[in-house]
Amino acid sequence: MSLTIRLHITTTQFNSNPLITTHERNHHNTRFVAKPICSNPLIRSPFFGRMSSANKGCVVVKSSLIDPDGGSLVDLVVKESERDLKARDAESMPMVSLTRIDLEWVHVLSEGWASPLRGFMREDEYLQSLHFNCLRMKDGSLVNMSLPIVLAIDDEAKERIGASNDVALAGPDGDLVGILRSIEIYKHNKEERIARTWGTTAPGLPYVEEVITPAGNWLIGGDLEVLKRIKYNDSLDNYRLSPQQLRKEFDKRQADAVFAFQLRNPVHNGHALLMNDTRRRLLEMGYKNPILLLHPLGGFTKVDDVPLDVRMEQHSKILEDGVLDPETTIVAIFPSPMHYAGPTEVQWHAKARINAGANFYIVGRDPAGMGHPTEKRDLYDPDHGKKVLSMAPGLEKLNILPFRVAAYDMVGKKMAFFDPSRAKDFLFISGTKMRTYARTGENPPDGFMCPGGWEVLVKYYESLQTEEATAATQNAAV
Amino acid sequence: MSLTIRLHITTTQFNSNPLITTHERNHHNTRFVAKPICSNPLIRSPFFGRMSSANKGCVVVKSSLIDPDGGSLVDLVVKESERDLKARDAESMPMVSLTRIDLEWVHVLSEGWASPLRGFMREDEYLQSLHFNCLRMKDGSLVNMSLPIVLAIDDEAKERIGASNDVALAGPDGDLVGILRSIEIYKHNKEERIARTWGTTAPGLPYVEEVITPAGNWLIGGDLEVLKRIKYNDSLDNYRLSPQQLRKEFDKRQADAVFAFQLRNPVHNGHALLMNDTRRRLLEMGYKNPILLLHPLGGFTKVDDVPLDVRMEQHSKILEDGVLDPETTIVAIFPSPMHYAGPTEVQWHAKARINAGANFYIVGRDPAGMGHPTEKRDLYDPDHGKKVLSMAPGLEKLNILPFRVAAYDMVGKKMAFFDPSRAKDFLFISGTKMRTYARTGENPPDGFMCPGGWEVLVKYYESLQTEEATAATQNAAV
Repeated sequence: MSLTIRLHITTTQFNSNPLITTHERNHHNTRFVAKPICSNPLIRSPFFGRMSSANKGCVVVKSSLIDPDGGSLVDLVVKESERDLKARDAESMPMVSLTRIDLEWVHVLSEGWASPLRGFMREDEYLQSLHFNCLRMKDGSLVNMSLPIVLAIDDEAKERIGASNDVALAGPDGDLVGILRSIEIYKHNKEERIARTWGTTAPGLPYVEEVITPAGNWLIGGDLEVLKRIKYNDSLDNYRLSPQQLRKEFDKRQADAVFAFQLRNPVHNGHALLMNDTRRRLLEMGYKNPILLLHPLGGFTKVDDVPLDVRMEQHSKILEDGVLDPETTIVAIFPSPMHYAGPTEVQWHAKARINAGANFYIVGRDPAGMGHPTEKRDLYDPDHGKKVLSMAPGLEKLNILPFRVAAYDMVGKKMAFFDPSRAKDFLFISGTKMRTYARTGENPPDGFMCPGGWEVLVKYYESLQTEEATAATQNAAV
Repeated sequence: MSLTIRLHITTTQFNSNPLITTHERNHHNTRFVAKPICSNPLIRSPFFGRMSSANKGCVVVKSSLIDPDGGSLVDLVVKESERDLKARDAESMPMVSLTRIDLEWVHVLSEGWASPLRGFMREDEYLQSLHFNCLRMKDGSLVNMSLPIVLAIDDEAKERIGASNDVALAGPDGDLVGILRSIEIYKHNKEERIARTWGTTAPGLPYVEEVITPAGNWLIGGDLEVLKRIKYNDSLDNYRLSPQQLRKEFDKRQADAVFAFQLRNPVHNGHALLMNDTRRRLLEMGYKNPILLLHPLGGFTKVDDVPLDVRMEQHSKILEDGVLDPETTIVAIFPSPMHYAGPTEVQWHAKARINAGANFYIVGRDPAGMGHPTEKRDLYDPDHGKKVLSMAPGLEKLNILPFRVAAYDMVGKKMAFFDPSRAKDFLFISGTKMRTYARTGENPPDGFMCPGGWEVLVKYYESLQTEEATAATQNAAV
């Protein structure tokens, strides 16, 4: 049985996140107590990736369950007392304008999701990321870094910057966001970046079309200073817990295991099954208080994905309806934009969660994948994501949890782990299929998703259709 | 001054290589004597990559200068006593036909150039190579492996193999070459392989057009056994020294440093300048007997490169003319095919030379590069090769020697290191330009290449023109 030690959350930032349960015992400022965990990176059990139960008791955790990459969490937000001085400093610097997605990366960098990275990549980091998906530290060790986190500028901006050592960064609305110091400007070979990151150069990759194709031919790297924490004022900022806040929360809850689940889709009962099953298995293995980090991606997604606000509402319903246990679940937003770069991107998703304090990472079929933009097939082999993740340099300390695929069991009338011995009984409902159901007003089979969650999706697609109909009427009128 | 300890080469295999000097003191069976060298992988001097003179005397070499990757040199050629048995074994196995270039890879694998690889890659090795350019060993350490060394088969061959555990390998002429055991067949996603290896999918990449486009949609990996050493019977086999033979040779010569120079072009005086300059600097650093491994690539090259036999004749002339010192130089053939994959491939070139016993590797401008196949620019940034090489996981133990670019000094009338302060005095003569000179019968500037070497090239291009003229006449007659 699970023994959950409940803690009262006193920080206003936390208890204003409605998906963190607040009816907990008052246990203010409790430090996480050192507990033995098992994370020998090279010993793997059949189910649990890099962890062996034979190894229990081998490692004593210091202040939390897993060290951030590079040893300490990067925080690039300047002290409030220095903010005015920095802002005055920036006035004399050439200005670089950030797009909405650049700003999402500033957010990611500023809070240390990409630790030990301290700013947009300089060329030596860019090349290591592109060729090796990892960065070498001064002590010779490697940390994972599979996506280039870079800032592009055009010829005009490059010329304007000239020999300046630092530049000021302005957000999409012109506000001063921060400073990039000791800059380096180098060539942005888009074709090579795309080929090495996506394993294809076919037209139609969402991030490429949105971000890379319109970008300039130069990249600018340097040390980032951010004037204040990035906020979106979209009523979801309270869900945007930083890695530091998440770590504190896990410690306060006395988690002895944190398992992260990355998603960009609504949660159906198949997802819930595997999250609950993972918790059950962790308890079986002797963990007393495994905490689920349900961690939807909050940055750029492609146009036919369900928007963040709708997903967050859907996730609330899942917890309200008791599909997931609010007392052992934390829902927070991962601020990164989405690349849809499959095996390359899933490493980023996992690595960022190390920095957020998760020591277990759940990986399923075709993570961060999509259909090939010009051919009728998946862009990536659906098994490559979990294979590559389990091999990736710098992720050895993370326990990878590959899961069996869940599908709709037409006999049991519920989502269940796929049983190949009675394959005919199972119905696979892809994200596309699910969206089609919701769009056409057709109900998915009973037990696919809890009714409250499904209703959120139906309403969203109804509103879309109303919008489309209105637009069509207006166009017809013109 | 250089102190060269000369050894008499007694092995017939060696003294039949005419570019290994044979007029040496009789010193049969001399074991290499342990000598201190400096190869702290993370300490770098400005000139000499990962080596610092402050660190001299830190490492005592055991049996040779640098350990092969994985600790011991792979040798996949079966004992002569087992050959007949293996050949009979193979009779009952499904047969896979090798192309000429597949056979070059069998050669490479069989002699341990790709140590610790013991055969064509299975999927876990393939994925690591593609995504990380390195392989994780059982002890957690990484070895470099930037090119996928894979064998493709088509649907028909896959069906024929069925559930068989082992397959026989037949050479292009139908002869049994070897066996691949405990096979694994997996998908050959050509687009992804090309994009991740070359950083482009543009049409016109020589290796892609020659090898990958016509290849089957499956890859077959397994443990390789080769019945006998691969020979080409082209009068150049004596130059094809295996890594084991090279290591023995370096030990016999009591080399205390071996610096490798990879090339696929004729040697001009610019190359010679930097090889001689490297030797001078190694001597200055305290090495007593640095040996140059002049190591032309012998496998597949693109159609407008100078063929191997012509290059080997040209290299002989360079030594005959005294441009390089035969007593401190070993010329041998590196049997790998050429990918023209720039920064990705240069790692393979370096890694294979570790296995051959070289502890220094010279790298210049745009190694393994070429023009973009569809755009008017270099395919790779000319500086990325040496940068990537210096960062590559698994190559830390190798001393990388980046060299300053040499060009023709029109004032000094010789090849010299480029001096940016008098840039106008220098003439850059590219491989293409050199071939144009030779083809048109125009002489390059005095001092560009020794006359004997140049004559070899002129004769080759004359013979090409004669062939072309004959073919044209015949076509006209038809």
